[in-house]
Amino acid sequence: MVARLLDAEWPRLRRLAARLRRRPPRLVVFVARGTSDNAATLGKYLVESLTGLPASLAAPSVVTLYGARPRLRDALVLAVSQSGRSTDVVEFVEEARRQGGLTVGITNDARSPLARTAHETLLCRAGPERSVAATKTYVAEVALLTLLVGAWARAREVEQGAGALPDALAATLKMEDEIAARAERYRYMQGCLVTSRGYNYATAKEAALKLKETCYLPAEALSSADLLHGPIAIVERDFPVMVIAPSGVPLAHLRQITARLAARGAETMVISDDAEILARAKVALPLVAPVPEVWSPAVAIVPAQLLSLHLAVARGFDPDRPRGLRKVTFTR
Amino acid sequence: MVARLLDAEWPRLRRLAARLRRRPPRLVVFVARGTSDNAATLGKYLVESLTGLPASLAAPSVVTLYGARPRLRDALVLAVSQSGRSTDVVEFVEEARRQGGLTVGITNDARSPLARTAHETLLCRAGPERSVAATKTYVAEVALLTLLVGAWARAREVEQGAGALPDALAATLKMEDEIAARAERYRYMQGCLVTSRGYNYATAKEAALKLKETCYLPAEALSSADLLHGPIAIVERDFPVMVIAPSGVPLAHLRQITARLAARGAETMVISDDAEILARAKVALPLVAPVPEVWSPAVAIVPAQLLSLHLAVARGFDPDRPRGLRKVTFTR
Repeated sequence: MVARLLDAEWPRLRRLAARLRRRPPRLVVFVARGTSDNAATLGKYLVESLTGLPASLAAPSVVTLYGARPRLRDALVLAVSQSGRSTDVVEFVEEARRQGGLTVGITNDARSPLARTAHETLLCRAGPERSVAATKTYVAEVALLTLLVGAWARAREVEQGAGALPDALAATLKMEDEIAARAERYRYMQGCLVTSRGYNYATAKEAALKLKETCYLPAEALSSADLLHGPIAIVERDFPVMVIAPSGVPLAHLRQITARLAARGAETMVISDDAEILARAKVALPLVAPVPEVWSPAVAIVPAQLLSLHLAVARGFDPDRPRGLRKVTFTR
Repeated sequence: MVARLLDAEWPRLRRLAARLRRRPPRLVVFVARGTSDNAATLGKYLVESLTGLPASLAAPSVVTLYGARPRLRDALVLAVSQSGRSTDVVEFVEEARRQGGLTVGITNDARSPLARTAHETLLCRAGPERSVAATKTYVAEVALLTLLVGAWARAREVEQGAGALPDALAATLKMEDEIAARAERYRYMQGCLVTSRGYNYATAKEAALKLKETCYLPAEALSSADLLHGPIAIVERDFPVMVIAPSGVPLAHLRQITARLAARGAETMVISDDAEILARAKVALPLVAPVPEVWSPAVAIVPAQLLSLHLAVARGFDPDRPRGLRKVTFTR
């Protein structure tokens, strides 16, 4: 899927990136819900760190409930929706267009209302998402956002790392049997925290959402900085904490956090390619095919997706059809 | 405390508001951690809905870890920190000043690094926060942000409602015995969700943080829109969900959510002044002194703070000294 997406969307992405360099917006506003909002969280970090522009995650209810009209004339609005049919996301894009902002939709459905509304559309090309819990479209949204911001900022590690992504994902998916064997350990877990920092804070949010959707577990994502500002109080002996720690700038900080969690007797599950932090984990989920940090969110989510899948099965649930959820959620 | 704050900070607030009207920034960037970040979440909603400017919650790690320099020249940076000593918050303000942005600090300590660094300082005037879990300074931060944005946008309901706030808070605090009697019901609760929408999404975040800090409970805040995009899957029979639903724009939506949660057999705890939604709750926590919606976050947090306090006591914990936390958290 990622190989196809790199091939098919690259020309459009480069044209859009060139246009953004010629006429840069003053800020970037992301609008999304659910899984796509987690991809947007990464987008915000990428925009701020690579382009130097401020970026914001819109609260769509400001527009749809309170009827406010935040000034979006100078903004690039990036709307992310797998189905392209989230009502409040589409309404926000309509409002941005009315004001003269540039709008870009990222969606898996070329004929969706979002694709029809936005100035430009980038397609996930993931085929139908049959499962309610979105997985492949999350990876596709992350890949598209990374490519777009990377091309816009001419970030060398983005263009250089993209080619290796399909193989890295294939190698990571081969870990499935090993991860499935680990899942049973958590059959009776009653909840957990997921933590990371920087680019992979988005990965932590998405891992927590998958555990909630498919395993019905209270699983909360916290940046490791916020974790220290209060919530670490809930971590007692055997409390499960997943740490997403691919090599990169936050690794040193995450090594310290993992040591501190271990000192509290926590059950640490660590997703990383770094031998030192993996050695400190109660359960190590190794990333076997390291990629540059900027690409790590596209790969590091995969072990968490596989763990959610097999833990759901171990708990006797159907991970493809969570109770009480439909594929498309209409919120205003 | 709120009466003192209204008196003492009003002249400075009005001058600052007038200055913001004369030379409006292009966007507003909030920077904060922990409890103060929840006050900042309200700030973002208020700025977008009352002033029409886009507002963003900064990810300080973009600056402090990745060394990025997001363009803040045209921005108003609002930094919120009870202690005024969060390292990454102060560093972000320094960077904004270097770029020529206008910086405002909201803090409880007039001699803190934040107060020395920001162009303007608004003081909580709450006296020392002796408890690790911040409560009165949260209310003070919320009051200052509401006053500032309200004065800036000349929002009549802000100025008209402010005078009633001290009495509304006093009346709400008198509910303590009734709430204490309710707390025992949750002695053996293993986790919960807290939900709301619009302005009181911030209240939901802060209520969840208090439950985590003082009761060591996994408690996650979700906007009721996001709740429908997946996480509602975890809500099974008897699962506790706190709904923050003061009168206002999101009330109709929150009534529907509460009905849907009830249909799943959830244990709903509802904080509201609305008789209809309270009648549908398993446990009703009435707001006895209704205030205009824009002021409701300052009041609706109080029953949740009282519940956290008494639930901590019922569970045998000292709510003032949570294990593993210190008053000031230094993160970079």
